[in-house]
Amino acid sequence: MYRNFRIVPNIIFGRGAFNQLDDVIKHKRTSSESYFVFVVDDAFTGQPLESRIPLKGRDLLLRVNVDDEPKTTYIDALVKQIRTYHFEKPVGVVGIGGGSTMDIAKAVSLMLNNPGSSADYQGWDLIKFPAVYHVAVPTLAGTGAEISRTAILTGPEKKLGINSDFTLYDQILLDPDLIAGVPKEQWFYTGMDCYIHDVESLQGTFINEFSRAYGEKSLDLCRQVFLQDHPDRDDKLMMASYFGGMSIAYSQVGACHALSYGLSYVLGIHHGIGCCIAFDYLDEIYPEGVAEFRQMMARHDISLPRNLTKGLDQAAMEKMVTTALGLVPLWQNCLGPDWADIMTRERTMELYTRM
Amino acid sequence: MYRNFRIVPNIIFGRGAFNQLDDVIKHKRTSSESYFVFVVDDAFTGQPLESRIPLKGRDLLLRVNVDDEPKTTYIDALVKQIRTYHFEKPVGVVGIGGGSTMDIAKAVSLMLNNPGSSADYQGWDLIKFPAVYHVAVPTLAGTGAEISRTAILTGPEKKLGINSDFTLYDQILLDPDLIAGVPKEQWFYTGMDCYIHDVESLQGTFINEFSRAYGEKSLDLCRQVFLQDHPDRDDKLMMASYFGGMSIAYSQVGACHALSYGLSYVLGIHHGIGCCIAFDYLDEIYPEGVAEFRQMMARHDISLPRNLTKGLDQAAMEKMVTTALGLVPLWQNCLGPDWADIMTRERTMELYTRM
Repeated sequence: MYRNFRIVPNIIFGRGAFNQLDDVIKHKRTSSESYFVFVVDDAFTGQPLESRIPLKGRDLLLRVNVDDEPKTTYIDALVKQIRTYHFEKPVGVVGIGGGSTMDIAKAVSLMLNNPGSSADYQGWDLIKFPAVYHVAVPTLAGTGAEISRTAILTGPEKKLGINSDFTLYDQILLDPDLIAGVPKEQWFYTGMDCYIHDVESLQGTFINEFSRAYGEKSLDLCRQVFLQDHPDRDDKLMMASYFGGMSIAYSQVGACHALSYGLSYVLGIHHGIGCCIAFDYLDEIYPEGVAEFRQMMARHDISLPRNLTKGLDQAAMEKMVTTALGLVPLWQNCLGPDWADIMTRERTMELYTRM
Repeated sequence: MYRNFRIVPNIIFGRGAFNQLDDVIKHKRTSSESYFVFVVDDAFTGQPLESRIPLKGRDLLLRVNVDDEPKTTYIDALVKQIRTYHFEKPVGVVGIGGGSTMDIAKAVSLMLNNPGSSADYQGWDLIKFPAVYHVAVPTLAGTGAEISRTAILTGPEKKLGINSDFTLYDQILLDPDLIAGVPKEQWFYTGMDCYIHDVESLQGTFINEFSRAYGEKSLDLCRQVFLQDHPDRDDKLMMASYFGGMSIAYSQVGACHALSYGLSYVLGIHHGIGCCIAFDYLDEIYPEGVAEFRQMMARHDISLPRNLTKGLDQAAMEKMVTTALGLVPLWQNCLGPDWADIMTRERTMELYTRM
């Protein structure tokens, strides 16, 4: 049985497309009471981008902090804040920021229409009701959050996404100008999230020709960005992110993402850098990908933090291993049905010990 | 201003996916009165595929003939036939066939919800009401009809598509097994429609990084299919068609498609072969693309018909030129804003005279 794959149905792409945001969303403003919630990374507070947000009437500018990756408690608090702000629901939610902000906007738009806590929906297809109309405006490229069917959250028990067709954005606006000024490290780590998606998808056992076509082109674009300094690298990285997201959406990620989830859950390490840290120890699984990744690191003079797990107690180490190995579909994709015989707890522990 | 681009939101891909058609559409069967119309190329009459169509209850199997490319009068007659069949509208239309059949299914699903004749809607964004839910099951690959926002029809005055966001399918089912047994000439001509889409898109002035990413990968896949006889060529050609369609959807086609429309309108030549005939005379505009196309023809031992316009009277020749030059956006994409100074009536006439 093949999965019937849902895709974000509307996309606008181009340098300066952010100027059209008002035009793109205005069809939802059906009455004078209608309002939008703009979920914006608080790194933009007082920045020129903030003043370009097309706020109208009752619209709510909801600045969010992503120093830590989004938690379910944070989502629940934001939803409560919106409900307190106005008794009617917003007609739409627009997420402006990187992967964490885009995931917050997804989760908020879902939770406005679904009862209980966001922690209740961490898993696959647990969401019952469609989300409020939601729009992504990425200001970082690589996560694929703009196209994925998940909103990744750290809950009381686990780091796991709200995976559902309802999670998908209704609209994405890709403006390469928005990623032009990102600091080098952030640009690199987020871009590598995409590169690693491609390697994990293409080398996985779930691969099909749909995922291969997207993954191969995304890899090609990543090379143009990170090895060839192409003059249109902002445009290319945005497309790489979109294609990488499409590739994993119809296949799956693999070992690196599983290990990075453990690093994030126990050590609070951000996803992009966590993927880079883990990938650097995965020569045995992805030899060519890791070799090329190191070329990219060298070219951009990136040095990764080391000895992160040194001094961690046994319980924390065990929790990290349990988190990583709990992501069964990722390991099945990476190593096939007998994955548990190959990636034992001991081997996983040994990998984490070296990080 | 960039266009807000609409994409078919649901896709299922894989060998044997046709067996899941019933499962994919059944959510629309909300009552015992609900029925689907299956618009099927009559070439499948009595063939094994026909017996696999998941007909239920009142469903209508509507065999269509595509010996000639679809005419607006034919669409109007089919819509009348459905209205006579049952006083309620169908809950969905499923098109099973090549580009012409997919275009018929699109046009029928639009005209079930829009008054008047389909000829009234030939043009851009003239459709007022959304179509009936419609699903594409291509049995040929290359046209991009599964993903395009147009249903190309020959009307009383012109060959021109019903271009609208409502034209887009709601769902596509891509089963590479369905294209495995296509006769060589048909396979080649339809595949070249895709190859030519890619060349026209990539060499056009409307190109952006979105269209480039799709067009380049589609071209790469076409090479694997037509120059390398890849063992997964059916899967790859289906993805090439989809990517090629995505590429032109956010850019435009060019000179070859414009000239092929003239051949179709006046001589009734089918689109795929018409594109091949025209492309073979476009060395000056697409030198590399035409050279590679000839390699593909030689490899597959294809010989194109010649001297098609010999003996045509002046009025017919003029009508052909007028048809081709009427497709202004195609020429703008191909040759830029001063296209009319470059592609004069004389030059167009000279090209047609050689065909």
